Amino acid sequence: MKAIVKPGRAPGLVVRDVPKPKCGGADVLIRVRHAGVCGTDLHIAEWDAWAQGRLKPPVVVGHEFAGEIVEVGPLVTEFKPGELVTAEGHIICGHCLQCRTGNGHVCQRTQIIGVDRDGAFAEFIAMPATNVMRLDGIPTHIGAIMDPMGNAFHTVLTAQIPGSVVLIVGCGPIGCFAVGIATAGGARAVIAVDVNPKRLALAKAMGATRALQPGPEVEAAVLELSEGNGADVVCEMSGAAPALHSAFRLARAGARVQLLGLPSTKVEVDFATEIIFKGLTVYGVIGRKMYETWHQMQRFLRSGRFDPAPVITHRFPLERIDEALAAIKSGDAGKVILEIGT
Amino acid sequence: MKAIVKPGRAPGLVVRDVPKPKCGGADVLIRVRHAGVCGTDLHIAEWDAWAQGRLKPPVVVGHEFAGEIVEVGPLVTEFKPGELVTAEGHIICGHCLQCRTGNGHVCQRTQIIGVDRDGAFAEFIAMPATNVMRLDGIPTHIGAIMDPMGNAFHTVLTAQIPGSVVLIVGCGPIGCFAVGIATAGGARAVIAVDVNPKRLALAKAMGATRALQPGPEVEAAVLELSEGNGADVVCEMSGAAPALHSAFRLARAGARVQLLGLPSTKVEVDFATEIIFKGLTVYGVIGRKMYETWHQMQRFLRSGRFDPAPVITHRFPLERIDEALAAIKSGDAGKVILEIGT
Amino acid sequence: MKAIVKPGRAPGLVVRDVPKPKCGGADVLIRVRHAGVCGTDLHIAEWDAWAQGRLKPPVVVGHEFAGEIVEVGPLVTEFKPGELVTAEGHIICGHCLQCRTGNGHVCQRTQIIGVDRDGAFAEFIAMPATNVMRLDGIPTHIGAIMDPMGNAFHTVLTAQIPGSVVLIVGCGPIGCFAVGIATAGGARAVIAVDVNPKRLALAKAMGATRALQPGPEVEAAVLELSEGNGADVVCEMSGAAPALHSAFRLARAGARVQLLGLPSTKVEVDFATEIIFKGLTVYGVIGRKMYETWHQMQRFLRSGRFDPAPVITHRFPLERIDEALAAIKSGDAGKVILEIGT
Amino acid sequence: MKAIVKPGRAPGLVVRDVPKPKCGGADVLIRVRHAGVCGTDLHIAEWDAWAQGRLKPPVVVGHEFAGEIVEVGPLVTEFKPGELVTAEGHIICGHCLQCRTGNGHVCQRTQIIGVDRDGAFAEFIAMPATNVMRLDGIPTHIGAIMDPMGNAFHTVLTAQIPGSVVLIVGCGPIGCFAVGIATAGGARAVIAVDVNPKRLALAKAMGATRALQPGPEVEAAVLELSEGNGADVVCEMSGAAPALHSAFRLARAGARVQLLGLPSTKVEVDFATEIIFKGLTVYGVIGRKMYETWHQMQRFLRSGRFDPAPVITHRFPLERIDEALAAIKSGDAGKVILEIGT
Repeated sequence: MKAIVKPGRAPGLVVRDVPKPKCGGADVLIRVRHAGVCGTDLHIAEWDAWAQGRLKPPVVVGHEFAGEIVEVGPLVTEFKPGELVTAEGHIICGHCLQCRTGNGHVCQRTQIIGVDRDGAFAEFIAMPATNVMRLDGIPTHIGAIMDPMGNAFHTVLTAQIPGSVVLIVGCGPIGCFAVGIATAGGARAVIAVDVNPKRLALAKAMGATRALQPGPEVEAAVLELSEGNGADVVCEMSGAAPALHSAFRLARAGARVQLLGLPSTKVEVDFATEIIFKGLTVYGVIGRKMYETWHQMQRFLRSGRFDPAPVITHRFPLERIDEALAAIKSGDAGKVILEIGT
Repeated sequence: MKAIVKPGRAPGLVVRDVPKPKCGGADVLIRVRHAGVCGTDLHIAEWDAWAQGRLKPPVVVGHEFAGEIVEVGPLVTEFKPGELVTAEGHIICGHCLQCRTGNGHVCQRTQIIGVDRDGAFAEFIAMPATNVMRLDGIPTHIGAIMDPMGNAFHTVLTAQIPGSVVLIVGCGPIGCFAVGIATAGGARAVIAVDVNPKRLALAKAMGATRALQPGPEVEAAVLELSEGNGADVVCEMSGAAPALHSAFRLARAGARVQLLGLPSTKVEVDFATEIIFKGLTVYGVIGRKMYETWHQMQRFLRSGRFDPAPVITHRFPLERIDEALAAIKSGDAGKVILEIGT
Repeated sequence: MKAIVKPGRAPGLVVRDVPKPKCGGADVLIRVRHAGVCGTDLHIAEWDAWAQGRLKPPVVVGHEFAGEIVEVGPLVTEFKPGELVTAEGHIICGHCLQCRTGNGHVCQRTQIIGVDRDGAFAEFIAMPATNVMRLDGIPTHIGAIMDPMGNAFHTVLTAQIPGSVVLIVGCGPIGCFAVGIATAGGARAVIAVDVNPKRLALAKAMGATRALQPGPEVEAAVLELSEGNGADVVCEMSGAAPALHSAFRLARAGARVQLLGLPSTKVEVDFATEIIFKGLTVYGVIGRKMYETWHQMQRFLRSGRFDPAPVITHRFPLERIDEALAAIKSGDAGKVILEIGT
Repeated sequence: MKAIVKPGRAPGLVVRDVPKPKCGGADVLIRVRHAGVCGTDLHIAEWDAWAQGRLKPPVVVGHEFAGEIVEVGPLVTEFKPGELVTAEGHIICGHCLQCRTGNGHVCQRTQIIGVDRDGAFAEFIAMPATNVMRLDGIPTHIGAIMDPMGNAFHTVLTAQIPGSVVLIVGCGPIGCFAVGIATAGGARAVIAVDVNPKRLALAKAMGATRALQPGPEVEAAVLELSEGNGADVVCEMSGAAPALHSAFRLARAGARVQLLGLPSTKVEVDFATEIIFKGLTVYGVIGRKMYETWHQMQRFLRSGRFDPAPVITHRFPLERIDEALAAIKSGDAGKVILEIGT
């Protein structure tokens, strides 16, 4: 089958033929229809320090996808060929304290598809049946982006949203999803911040009450909409050090600050002033809650109050992965997807 | 001043002149503009068993209102004359375990205005400043109904709403508010049930996904919208015994059932089947959380996503209290308000 | 192998030889050392209405046990022969909303060993590896009663225990475990109630601050130890209708009432007075949280602050199951265990 | 009356006669029996940068105390002369969002006694009645240290303690209280860390499972007692930068990290590795929850399972405040108290 492969320990990805994966006893084999391209894929292509430390090429890349089941293993009773599905790309051990107590998203033995084992930028992928979610009417181009949407749901819905003033710092695709989720989830107001006007336009399309470039008008908007208190919930989705400081500063006393963006360097924090005296709760967001987050997504998509479609700005066939990565690198793209099968 | 008074231990209310209340040291004196009429006022007028056991006439009735501050006591620093305000009608002790740990709504020494002490169906009322909330742009006819709206907010927002299928049983004014709150709060679907088509029309106007009379189509709707699971949250706002059994039955395993409606008789419950085997959490709702609920209301009203105005179906001047009570008694009314001052 | 079997649709159990179970691909085969006898086993033996409606004889009974792994299926990587283990006896579907969102204990497709499929009163049992917990030093006679202990942990630790006045109504084995858990969990005081003085002696041995027969001294003790407020947490473990009313009455306003005991008949409840006006939260407890409860148990047992051993009052070999059931029926027993293998 | 006063904008404290405070309308006047000396008092005496920025001398210092009510203002109905009491030293506005929603401990208009207004190192102090708590049998030398004990209760009991492995970094008086609270609250194990052997001996006396100096044995102990997972709850009570990094590192994935210690400088944090990838929740602890924390303290003290007495290592009369401060400065003291009246 055709796949996008990291062939060796050097920059670049190649499109080439690889063997079709086998369907294990507890697996389902899925013909991929759509796949989402992520910043992580760019890191892998560019072979940055993180990628060098983690990947063992050759590996088929890609971890966001949806498609059709074409085969089920002999132990699988829940699924049958012909069903349209997506899947959680974190394959967890299922036995550790975290897995056994509702925190599988921080399982220390997680394997990520497209990183630690072959992934989804391919005509077929085999997945453990426990990781698979039926789409039940959600189209595959939306199903293909439920992984990053799930990061946004995890970030937003582990805070108390109804009635809250929510500040979202960073309007990449996950930030834009977060805007839509907070809006549909009953926020009193959603203030979105990014340096890039194209991204702010997307945030606005997703329902942001205000979409602003960094600067004094952000603080003014937060204070105006919160009657001078500050934001009840801050979602830091950028990873930029100044944004992190803004997140702490614009949070009201007693607020919740959700950290999803990954700073690339250490950040100097004045814990007393920025966190302790304000009585903040700071939560590190990784992955999706398995599988509360997935059920929440299905519910929001079905309610019709949340539509992620405006965030999808680019579509390419599998062969044009380099253009897809370039679109991400430009910083102007929303979500970029690959059209692989039908 | 003019007031609606329960003059003695017998049915009926009278409109008559009573002395204007004095403004105590920690009080504010409020000129009432609008007041809400409640089922409780009807119980008092009709002098039912509950009223006979609780009231010590003569007493000025009425506990839902908004108006303008005209005087502040010498210890009051937070308010000044001219401000438009509403107030929590439960005056709590402030010292007991409940009051001191965020559960003042179940303070065992609560005094309710219009029940245990003079109330709001009058040209003026004196209130402890701690019970007063500034309207800050909310009109007084809306401010006047924040007390029963608060019951609805307390009922709905102490459950997990974003993404939930919410069943609301009973579409009196509080039930209709609940429909609007659950909708604005991110419910996946809101199913409203009442015997009265006029009330169902109000529920629909407030955003109900479905508005149905009791019968098999209720269960069908719940199952359809919840993919066969049952309701995630049930709000029982009717107090009818059959409705209570429906509430338990249509709740999914692991659901939350909020009980606001007061059954007038004992109800036979099969605890094993109805509650325990399903792992339900059942919560008795009384009053409003002081003052989380009030802040939530302000936020929802300000966001523009929740508008209670459609629920107000009748307005009368103070003198026509009997017509106001008759409208409530008919069962067709939404919220009935008195226009007292300007 | 030797097993205790419900042979047909009539009262009685028999000890007889049955085929040794096969170890499926994802199963482990366990040689049973100790098993706990439960009231449920008595219902099955006596063939009551519940048993008649649920069981499909012939079936090997018994659902509480611990033993040694003697074989593992080819898909099992977490366990190996020789390990001492116990197991959760509820085999859940793993795919439904409840299973996927941390509420597998109310999975609507649960199969219980010893009820819906062959159980643990036998020399060997095959269990899905996902249901198995390593004992890691906990002796098998204690491991064998972790299932009912788990009910007690679920009941007690889903309430807020540190600093709370806890009332435990019903001092059968699960009630006695609950006394020990609440004590070790930091309760300010634990008041245990039962009609049977032998059970009260067990409750006292497990650390009850007071152990009392029903009567006015229960209320007096609750009020004394709670400074007149009532119990912060009530655990109803008896299923008796009068106990249920006491549970509601002795709970303080705003309290949490945990219902584990199964009333055998309907109970008339005055919802307004007993639950709603008091702002109670009532929680139906079924099974054990999978697998938070099991991890909590291991932690409490390892800390040395909780020792369930005093609750074990009787031990019999497998052949003397009738005596074991008679001990339970007498109402005087704590936990009764079978010694099956070594 | 005699009082310890910060007389002007320079280092040092003086003991001198000042006017006895007046009892306002909503106040009680308290004759102080015992007072606790705190690191904050040392900062004030030494006139450090924080003190220079905050205090407006002259001011009577001291914020931890207990004593006897000798006069009540005309609006006070809850207290009467002769009652023994302690008090929350944070006087909050009562009207802001935080005060009105259960987060008065982060009220942005807080006034602290002994810092922003006259304090408790004096023969008498006037306090708003709402800040006063009856001792009801707790002796005044214990009542005098409920303020810092409250910091420890707030830190420990806002985490989930029953069954948890708790790491407490920093064994000053508040850290030692935290050890005792976690132990009484049902922790599976409590590991206490400090550089000072005298403090470790106090931690051991308060019930620490292990009391260790920083070094590899801390990690070894955490891993041993948590079966290799890491600490479920970390309480950082030292404010030292290396301790903060240890707190994050030794917390298990999904853990809760409570920050009470105030770092005196900025700390460089690798948010991705230390917080986000581990899915940590980090909570900034300030003051005491008003008044949940106070009720919890009363309950723990009354249960007999928590006794803070071993932490009190020094007692001085008011005149010897310099010796009291020297004891604190030495780093060897537990809690230091002043004996003022009887």
